[in-house]
Amino acid sequence: MSPDQVPAGAAAQRGAGAHRHRQASHSHDLPVLPEAVDIFDTTLRDGSQQEGLSLTVDDKLRVAEQLDHLGVAFIEGGWPGANPKDAEFFARAPAELRLGTATLVAFGSTRRAGVKAEDDEVLRHLVKANTEAVCIVAKASALHVSEALRTSKDEALAMAHDSVAFLRHHDLRVFFDAEHFFDGYAEDPGFSVSVLRAAAEAGADTLVLCDTNGGTLPHDVEHIVAEMVAGFDTQVGVHFHNDSGCAVANSIAAVRAGATHVQGCINGYGERTGNADLSAAIPNLSLKLRVRTIPEDRLERITPVSHHIAELVNTAPNPQQPYVGAAAFAHKAGLHTSAIARRRDAYEHIAPDLVGNGTRFVVSEMAGRSTLALKAEELGLELDSEALGAVLDTLKVLEHRGYHFEVADGSLELLLRRATGWEPDYFELESFRVIADHDRQHLTEATVKVRIGDHRILAVAEGNGPVNALDSALRSAIGPHFPELSGIHLVDYRVRVLDTGTGTAAVTRVLIDTTDGEVVWTTIGVSENVIEASWQALFDSIVYGLLRSRSFGRPAAPRPDRRATPTDAAPTVAAPTEAARTEAARTEER
Amino acid sequence: MSPDQVPAGAAAQRGAGAHRHRQASHSHDLPVLPEAVDIFDTTLRDGSQQEGLSLTVDDKLRVAEQLDHLGVAFIEGGWPGANPKDAEFFARAPAELRLGTATLVAFGSTRRAGVKAEDDEVLRHLVKANTEAVCIVAKASALHVSEALRTSKDEALAMAHDSVAFLRHHDLRVFFDAEHFFDGYAEDPGFSVSVLRAAAEAGADTLVLCDTNGGTLPHDVEHIVAEMVAGFDTQVGVHFHNDSGCAVANSIAAVRAGATHVQGCINGYGERTGNADLSAAIPNLSLKLRVRTIPEDRLERITPVSHHIAELVNTAPNPQQPYVGAAAFAHKAGLHTSAIARRRDAYEHIAPDLVGNGTRFVVSEMAGRSTLALKAEELGLELDSEALGAVLDTLKVLEHRGYHFEVADGSLELLLRRATGWEPDYFELESFRVIADHDRQHLTEATVKVRIGDHRILAVAEGNGPVNALDSALRSAIGPHFPELSGIHLVDYRVRVLDTGTGTAAVTRVLIDTTDGEVVWTTIGVSENVIEASWQALFDSIVYGLLRSRSFGRPAAPRPDRRATPTDAAPTVAAPTEAARTEAARTEER
Repeated sequence: MSPDQVPAGAAAQRGAGAHRHRQASHSHDLPVLPEAVDIFDTTLRDGSQQEGLSLTVDDKLRVAEQLDHLGVAFIEGGWPGANPKDAEFFARAPAELRLGTATLVAFGSTRRAGVKAEDDEVLRHLVKANTEAVCIVAKASALHVSEALRTSKDEALAMAHDSVAFLRHHDLRVFFDAEHFFDGYAEDPGFSVSVLRAAAEAGADTLVLCDTNGGTLPHDVEHIVAEMVAGFDTQVGVHFHNDSGCAVANSIAAVRAGATHVQGCINGYGERTGNADLSAAIPNLSLKLRVRTIPEDRLERITPVSHHIAELVNTAPNPQQPYVGAAAFAHKAGLHTSAIARRRDAYEHIAPDLVGNGTRFVVSEMAGRSTLALKAEELGLELDSEALGAVLDTLKVLEHRGYHFEVADGSLELLLRRATGWEPDYFELESFRVIADHDRQHLTEATVKVRIGDHRILAVAEGNGPVNALDSALRSAIGPHFPELSGIHLVDYRVRVLDTGTGTAAVTRVLIDTTDGEVVWTTIGVSENVIEASWQALFDSIVYGLLRSRSFGRPAAPRPDRRATPTDAAPTVAAPTEAARTEAARTEER
Repeated sequence: MSPDQVPAGAAAQRGAGAHRHRQASHSHDLPVLPEAVDIFDTTLRDGSQQEGLSLTVDDKLRVAEQLDHLGVAFIEGGWPGANPKDAEFFARAPAELRLGTATLVAFGSTRRAGVKAEDDEVLRHLVKANTEAVCIVAKASALHVSEALRTSKDEALAMAHDSVAFLRHHDLRVFFDAEHFFDGYAEDPGFSVSVLRAAAEAGADTLVLCDTNGGTLPHDVEHIVAEMVAGFDTQVGVHFHNDSGCAVANSIAAVRAGATHVQGCINGYGERTGNADLSAAIPNLSLKLRVRTIPEDRLERITPVSHHIAELVNTAPNPQQPYVGAAAFAHKAGLHTSAIARRRDAYEHIAPDLVGNGTRFVVSEMAGRSTLALKAEELGLELDSEALGAVLDTLKVLEHRGYHFEVADGSLELLLRRATGWEPDYFELESFRVIADHDRQHLTEATVKVRIGDHRILAVAEGNGPVNALDSALRSAIGPHFPELSGIHLVDYRVRVLDTGTGTAAVTRVLIDTTDGEVVWTTIGVSENVIEASWQALFDSIVYGLLRSRSFGRPAAPRPDRRATPTDAAPTVAAPTEAARTEAARTEER
């Protein structure tokens, strides 16, 4: 097979010849840019060192499936010698993992000082992991050899050589992680290079230069990698950490300098500040440097895979994440939204669908008229210029008082609908009262008095707190008139205190998320009084729910909010009205 | 003044001569590295375009204080012509902001097409903002001129020239934001450069090359900035967005190419994926490139300032953030922790105290015990091993229920003191009741019944909300016995709902900050009922205040908490008891 035929991420290819180098189109001083690189994901090994991240074997299997679905070349699965969970992972993988594009890699370290490779526990575990490829770490810094390993440079070189030779003898593809390479190279380049040479001579397939402490900057990466690519026939790879905020840029700099193997983690998981974020490195390499990474037609999977893995490992995805973040193509500034309405690329560096993401418009006081017009159009509302101007003014006044409509789509829609002349007339509040007693098992009592047409209804309910009690009392009062309320539940309740610095008299902003099982909507209330603010948000929540069921006569399209998905997927919503400690009573007068 | 004497961030310096260039120590192809750069923070303008971020004028004033405390050269405060909130900010700033190192900057755009500069609303608002410096944005891309502005290239050049000339005529320092510069330069370099030339010829002080869509990569930044630095006598600045995950690396590349003005946002706030994160760019430039940014002795403020601003803008800080993140120097891997116990720099790229951060070891109950022991020692408490173990157990149970003592030093101290056998006996609560009526101007009424020795006291008070009312009632009840309470005020009240997904019945965590004018302490309450949780935090708040005044007989040393500083610095505390709408009544029985 000629180098031209090598697909991106070809797991079977070995050695430096795997990827041809071509002239770099953007380069001004570097001679070569590879045509393709192998993507090596270490989420399951290095990534799981992240604080707060703890994966079961099942989690790991599911993450590996997702990475394979994305199309990475290598998945580092764990350290079978150091961790029983990882040993179980490798034991179960052959039967439970069906990998299409990816090769599984087991991780370990070189043999201990003074021990024969064939007698070394870690190396034997590696062989037993039964993978085609392994990755071993060796210290490539003279300082670390003397201070951490406490052995001689010669023994360190022998450890590298013997371990690689042993694994190659077992016919394993060997990735050689040169730990602390960049720092070591700055202090004692001769030793660091000799560690690489020892591994190369023993048959290592890839020499991986690791910036273990994450402190190296792109310009140093570029020239050091270029020197290693020029000096070795073996494939050169890189492994960066984000301690300087440059892990992605470092990966790009390394590829520009000729590295053809890039390690990192999906979503930038990892110890301290994380490993290089493959969710950004892959699209940068594929779309901007035109270097093949994962199969081209799978790039659009990267946003869904990123979000899916975030759910599997149970971390909140960062909306600001490049390429795949929920806000990566969200536009808020009025100037931007009006421009982007004309040209989609006005404020987008790539077409978001290339990475499976999408454009979003965020409505706020900063939004201009055009954002609101877009929103109204989305809702099928006809608002003339005057009405739009009036809504915009109202919005600005309310946001100045602490409302924040960009996160409250339900309340925003009610506002826009009112601008068309619509008024909700489902029920009318006469008054409510909330009583909380310290000595009654923390139960709170709420009474509401409402009118529906000619009927005056009084209802009382208890709850675990004021919002819960008010919600129950309101449902008790109007529920018989609106049976659909039984299918509408609050799913989240958030409180923020604004203008901090004025103590308890500050303004409180309450957000409530509600669902009818199909979509989720968010409503808002603002007041000096948390109970009043809660009531406003609750009122909008119920009115919006009734509007959906009564006026639309159809389920509205699910909103493009990321939070809709998990709630729909896992409808384990405990409705406040079902809370064991809630009781309600009701009287209706004519 | 010779260029040698220019301090980093010298606001008064103008033009390209402000920072001398020296030979770059790490450079392999670039001739110049500046000695210093001006740091320009745009959190209050571009940063607030972030989805979910909405700042009140008070928030903005407090963020500006923090940025000045950090020592940035310029603070972009907002767009006075576009936003009434920003106009109010600039109106209040002269009286309410005491800036030490920073110069406030108002933002706007060039004149509209076909309008004279002196007749342009936006430019007139800029002058009225009454700042020493202004920043105006102009389109520096031929494509955007024709597609978005829909005007001719000549008119676009005239708009840039006339606007700068008008502002310079009003003796303002002018930063010229060349929007879409990098993309424009790739498409039609002649036009993009001519926009810069128009601004430079009209007297602009700084030409800011903006990567508005955030798609440019460091190697292109480097050569384009180098060309502009070579081509203009005017100072060159840069403004990056993080859409490719390279905003920090791009800022470094630009400075290496000779840029001496760097725009960005603390914590990388901003639309889409955010602006260049100054919390990473500043330490990279100062510590790694040895280019002066903020005053050297203030670098250690960057972690506390980053966290403080995250609280002010009410966003959860990212623990993985380089340099300033809570996990930036946290070590989890066993291999790492044992190595780092030998050598602190084994897995840390810099000494964390340089940026006001610290090493942390994750997990291990031993860490918990030793931290607690350190804390007890700090408080002068003698806790034997058994007592420490008991406190640790209690702590774990409470934290499992949602308490978070790391942020509640007051409650933690009370817990530790109780472990020594101490019990507060200042007063005893019999019961409280809170009544909130919708129809009574949103006023809430609280009654408390307490005992002090043989006295049984009933008190009632009204407030703007339940906490305010409870605080007033409690003070009314016990105030005559503890006159020092008049000097103790609540300064902040924060509510978080935990275990979201169970609707309004979720657990609520309340934090209250209290001060006696000397120190600030934080107390915590957790309950399903927000009123009960608030009471717990309030109770601890008052008890801790009485403990300080009664038992210590001395003002305790100010706590080393980051939040103590700004609150002490700006004691603009409105005590809830002074709120106009609060009334109270009291009866005392024997």
